[in-house]
Amino acid sequence: MTKPSVITLLTDFGTADYFVAALKGVILTSNPLTCIVDITHEIPPQDIEAGAFTLLTCYRDFPKGTIHVAVVDPGVGSGRRAIVVKAGSQYFVGPDNGLFSYVLDNDPEHKVFQITKSKYFREAASSTFHGRDLFAPVAAALADGVKPSKFGSRIEDAVRLAPLAPNKNDDGKVEGRIINVDRFGNCVTNFTRADLPEPGGKQLSVNGREITTFRQFYADEDGSKADEAGATDQIFAIWGSAGFLELSVNAASAAELLAVKRGDPVIASALSADAA
Amino acid sequence: MTKPSVITLLTDFGTADYFVAALKGVILTSNPLTCIVDITHEIPPQDIEAGAFTLLTCYRDFPKGTIHVAVVDPGVGSGRRAIVVKAGSQYFVGPDNGLFSYVLDNDPEHKVFQITKSKYFREAASSTFHGRDLFAPVAAALADGVKPSKFGSRIEDAVRLAPLAPNKNDDGKVEGRIINVDRFGNCVTNFTRADLPEPGGKQLSVNGREITTFRQFYADEDGSKADEAGATDQIFAIWGSAGFLELSVNAASAAELLAVKRGDPVIASALSADAA
Amino acid sequence: MTKPSVITLLTDFGTADYFVAALKGVILTSNPLTCIVDITHEIPPQDIEAGAFTLLTCYRDFPKGTIHVAVVDPGVGSGRRAIVVKAGSQYFVGPDNGLFSYVLDNDPEHKVFQITKSKYFREAASSTFHGRDLFAPVAAALADGVKPSKFGSRIEDAVRLAPLAPNKNDDGKVEGRIINVDRFGNCVTNFTRADLPEPGGKQLSVNGREITTFRQFYADEDGSKADEAGATDQIFAIWGSAGFLELSVNAASAAELLAVKRGDPVIASALSADAA
Repeated sequence: MTKPSVITLLTDFGTADYFVAALKGVILTSNPLTCIVDITHEIPPQDIEAGAFTLLTCYRDFPKGTIHVAVVDPGVGSGRRAIVVKAGSQYFVGPDNGLFSYVLDNDPEHKVFQITKSKYFREAASSTFHGRDLFAPVAAALADGVKPSKFGSRIEDAVRLAPLAPNKNDDGKVEGRIINVDRFGNCVTNFTRADLPEPGGKQLSVNGREITTFRQFYADEDGSKADEAGATDQIFAIWGSAGFLELSVNAASAAELLAVKRGDPVIASALSADAA
Repeated sequence: MTKPSVITLLTDFGTADYFVAALKGVILTSNPLTCIVDITHEIPPQDIEAGAFTLLTCYRDFPKGTIHVAVVDPGVGSGRRAIVVKAGSQYFVGPDNGLFSYVLDNDPEHKVFQITKSKYFREAASSTFHGRDLFAPVAAALADGVKPSKFGSRIEDAVRLAPLAPNKNDDGKVEGRIINVDRFGNCVTNFTRADLPEPGGKQLSVNGREITTFRQFYADEDGSKADEAGATDQIFAIWGSAGFLELSVNAASAAELLAVKRGDPVIASALSADAA
Repeated sequence: MTKPSVITLLTDFGTADYFVAALKGVILTSNPLTCIVDITHEIPPQDIEAGAFTLLTCYRDFPKGTIHVAVVDPGVGSGRRAIVVKAGSQYFVGPDNGLFSYVLDNDPEHKVFQITKSKYFREAASSTFHGRDLFAPVAAALADGVKPSKFGSRIEDAVRLAPLAPNKNDDGKVEGRIINVDRFGNCVTNFTRADLPEPGGKQLSVNGREITTFRQFYADEDGSKADEAGATDQIFAIWGSAGFLELSVNAASAAELLAVKRGDPVIASALSADAA
């Protein structure tokens, strides 16, 4: 083996405790040649939907064969299943609670295996820390070349979150929602280019505000449309780097200005006469 | 050498400044094949006990030969000694201030060497940043195969913290304390399975509250015992993944509900007639 | 190639979102043997000066040939140029907005190349995320041995920040400023040993306070000079590990006690008769 296997970690563990280090130690003990990459450990505690979104937005940037370990796991130790997913030439290891929903949606050829073979687990596996005791050893075994089917039987009923796609109404309106707010306060919606091929001809209604400006990039002052309401309305829509339409403000938080949070509705409709 | 040496870092440096990067640069300059793993850099500033606990809870998950660099070092530049510890088939490098106490407690065969040979230090070593100028170069040298005894003389009087073990009283009560509060608000006590072989038959007194519920895992609703006091008392005890009894609440912070912090006492006694 | 190329990342992305992971995925997809090191991702959003300072304080600790990717990029997608810098036997990749100013100041032999050859970019490069789509692929190509001149033409007019050096007045006073406040509240000034060869003979004026104590290390109680004003004045000056004079307090934040922030002036003058 000339190049190391990449194993990524995405959790809600934070970085102040020993949890993340324990996973890495277990992986390196089993397979010292792996390249371990932190996606993030700051998923809000037990927020499966946030974990699923973050994984969606970056897993395709990793090499073929990458093994993604994702642990946002409120049901640890209970009856929830543990799974290995093969999708898009990559592997995913974690709890069967919807974390991998958007990955599964992206690849109809995916295969899901329940993890049941305890011979792959850490000795004296706990009932509270499957990240260390079950998912990390399974990921290390995958990196060693163990086939997903070795960990248990294939299943067809993996837990799925509601699909990301917005609803298209008969009246031409498209009903979307905010699916993420990033560090800069940008509000990521679930509108893709397929949903809104011409965003410049639309207005977006969100929390009582109408957003009619579309920009090509954040600092694109010239491309902005003057707004009747004046300086207070600097919010614009922009295609974000994850492929979704985002609501943004230059050098400020759109989420704060709009007073919105994840899950809040965003309605796209034809530009009204007033706005056009 | 076919596999890289693992060097871990545990500090109170935070991750916003250049401190951690400087350590990594020094290590990689000396030894480009090392695999550097962050345990955490969020130990509360100068909190030696928190550093010692975090190291205790994960070092055994790392491979044999791993080199742990720990820097929580209020006495940097003063007379406090710098040490290399060999214990449990691993190495530990840092200040002699108690950081490695629990590791030393775990391995009676440990050896401690004072670091005095300045030929291993970074050129122009500062008096304020021994992490970069002394501990990182020594760790890189260890990874290169330099023996611990090469850095200075063996010492027998390394600084030690008070032992973790709780006190067993004549009346059958066991007096423990909270030794850590994690990101989720779980309160880790210093009770091990050896101290409390049958936690289900005990009650735990903490800050005026009696905890009589013991669970196998966090989401174990069925295993919980109904409490006379009703819904407000959802706190339960559980064997945590570090091997200590923890006080927890589902999807909330036990530390907040109990209004406790590290160091606060927890008394285990036989179930009273009221509770049983 | 026997040892991996080191690529460092310094950004204002934070670590909660997918941004950093996307860069790492792109780099590893292109070049699986790179060793990626996070300098920090907690540069305050769009704070170019803070990014430039943090890079300055650690880049020289990394091996020759290290490739530093720095992304603090308020002008992403606009006309601002993208550049590769070769300086001090290392490489730097990022926006041309002053981020590399202090590196350029340190090496008069530096060379700067504008990045224009889109064949090195990620497919379907966005206008909002040049870190992933442009800087990361260019860094991976550098790690593969591509020469800086392959990415575009050499330029001589890279954007520069004001120099770090303090002003020396005719009256013997040296006018400096606070250039960084670290996690511990230490205030880093822009005074170097060249500016203040004898700090013990000086007093430092900052926000109405006179600091007349100079220490060799943080815990150096003995070296401190008793202050007439008594216990409230525990602030001292010390040569910090980055080579600048710092204002510090033992086990507290000098920045809070002094009520200062980055950019605030610090004046060094001869000790007054009162203080001497």
